[in-house]
Amino acid sequence: MATVSLSLDEIYKLANKTLLANGCDQETADILSELITNAERDGSLSHGLFRLPAYVSGLKSGKINGKQKPDIKKLTPSVIKADGKNCLAPVVLNKSIPELVKAAKENGVAVLAIINSHHMAAMWPETEKIAEEGLVAFACTSYKPAVAPAGAIKPLFGTNPISFAWPRKNNTPVVYDMATASMAMGEVQVAKREGHKVPLGTGLTKDGKDTTNPAEIADGGVLLPFGGYKGSGIAMMVELLAGALVGDNFSYETAAKDNNDGGPPSGGEFILAISPDKLSDKDWDKHANEFFEKMKSMGEVRLPGERRHKNRLDKGPRNINEELVNKIRSLS
Amino acid sequence: MATVSLSLDEIYKLANKTLLANGCDQETADILSELITNAERDGSLSHGLFRLPAYVSGLKSGKINGKQKPDIKKLTPSVIKADGKNCLAPVVLNKSIPELVKAAKENGVAVLAIINSHHMAAMWPETEKIAEEGLVAFACTSYKPAVAPAGAIKPLFGTNPISFAWPRKNNTPVVYDMATASMAMGEVQVAKREGHKVPLGTGLTKDGKDTTNPAEIADGGVLLPFGGYKGSGIAMMVELLAGALVGDNFSYETAAKDNNDGGPPSGGEFILAISPDKLSDKDWDKHANEFFEKMKSMGEVRLPGERRHKNRLDKGPRNINEELVNKIRSLS
Repeated sequence: MATVSLSLDEIYKLANKTLLANGCDQETADILSELITNAERDGSLSHGLFRLPAYVSGLKSGKINGKQKPDIKKLTPSVIKADGKNCLAPVVLNKSIPELVKAAKENGVAVLAIINSHHMAAMWPETEKIAEEGLVAFACTSYKPAVAPAGAIKPLFGTNPISFAWPRKNNTPVVYDMATASMAMGEVQVAKREGHKVPLGTGLTKDGKDTTNPAEIADGGVLLPFGGYKGSGIAMMVELLAGALVGDNFSYETAAKDNNDGGPPSGGEFILAISPDKLSDKDWDKHANEFFEKMKSMGEVRLPGERRHKNRLDKGPRNINEELVNKIRSLS
Repeated sequence: MATVSLSLDEIYKLANKTLLANGCDQETADILSELITNAERDGSLSHGLFRLPAYVSGLKSGKINGKQKPDIKKLTPSVIKADGKNCLAPVVLNKSIPELVKAAKENGVAVLAIINSHHMAAMWPETEKIAEEGLVAFACTSYKPAVAPAGAIKPLFGTNPISFAWPRKNNTPVVYDMATASMAMGEVQVAKREGHKVPLGTGLTKDGKDTTNPAEIADGGVLLPFGGYKGSGIAMMVELLAGALVGDNFSYETAAKDNNDGGPPSGGEFILAISPDKLSDKDWDKHANEFFEKMKSMGEVRLPGERRHKNRLDKGPRNINEELVNKIRSLS
């Protein structure tokens, strides 16, 4: 693969210019460019520049409003409701996470219920930001149907990611962000191309049969939730939290209402923040660190987030897919 | 298997008499007897009379205080902290869930942090009770190490169950309660006895190798989390929420501090309640029911909790293992 070497500053500027040229105001372009740059910085490539053309598609078609600001209301001392009014989720998050953090610090727990925004980024940026404030964070969102519930053979759930972050004093948070699908369809397609089998439970054939052949899943088959019926229960929980609970769509409704311009559809997100300072009367940070040390001493165990945080220390340029860079340059 | 037919009332009376004879006061005996009877009623057999001998062991050794009452404090308008002072978890729950429900209805979200209580029951009784009040509920607790983190070959996590319940107006909640272990060790032992294989990912041999042979897992091997590294992330989250966050032990500390009398060790529990009435301005109940109908229309899909709620409609006697009944009768 041919690559182009770009500094983090050049990545930011490329994203910023592209977004400004496609209907974003300066504030939205800045927020999204920082998000994209941070993803490249952390090696979270599928959420970096790779996503930019899809954002542009949504901006071009008018589905996403690149100049809109969210409407944020404090419904109770512990509930923040943010109506994105079709702006991008990172803009909503930029303005509502500080409110969530404040409420959780004051009351011990708070919820941020987001509706009508376009989310196609990772979720670790929001949970990590909350954890950096000394709070435990949990977030989830749904998308379009891609995953069959346990027992079904057709998609109903989105890939429905969940993200959890645990705060550490004077250290990066322990944070994960994972789809509740067994695997991304992109990974199944890579396995197909490279002739590898996938584990049983990854997906079903178009006739609903178990298979380890990635081609049978990719070509008209369907993904399954990770971990069988247990993962299916978690994917269902995500549908309910990011859908009916916050007052936005289920994945199947999202699909029905989307214009399929390639950009992220509009939907909901559920975010929870909890203060260990309020709940625990012990030294929770020392206590948790003993646990993490114990975990890490057990062999090939990696704390979630460690690899990203290690990548972050490298301030040097990144090698970006040349074809992608050319494509992005053609968009402005 | 020889069985004895007992009415639900006879099950209650048998449990009650046994608990009173082993150090419980009337209130504790009543609360625990109701819990056990409801488990038998719902067909949740592993949490019914089957658990009674272990409770008696803990009461006899003095580990569990059958007369103690919890200390319940409202730390903030949204945080309830309950110190069980070594009473049984159902007693703590009986007194603190109403406080949690009240706080969640008022503020939209509330947390109940329980420490120093003995939990060996299912968790659906608490999440279902919260959901019956029109609130979304999530609960988790840890136990003693039984499950290896992804990448390790020795146990660190407990079976670490999570329970989620979604409220429905004029209907039973949709509720699940599942271990984050791939399988209960009891189920692995059944597979061993019956000569069945278990799925890859269920556990490891004593040398840390993947296996489908249940004997290699049961005899010195170790269970794995459900769903590989993703389930491992969820099991880790449970350790943190029910441990450092509420201010109680991690599973490995629980084991180190337990007297191993066979009764449930002392530990923490994390419970969250959220009000959809506060978060959503839509008809969330109608909206969620459309989703559930969609799910159920997709083939062999069962809504979590349905089987238990169906069992519940049968008010008749239950067939209880005769050996178990005789054992319990010998305890009073």
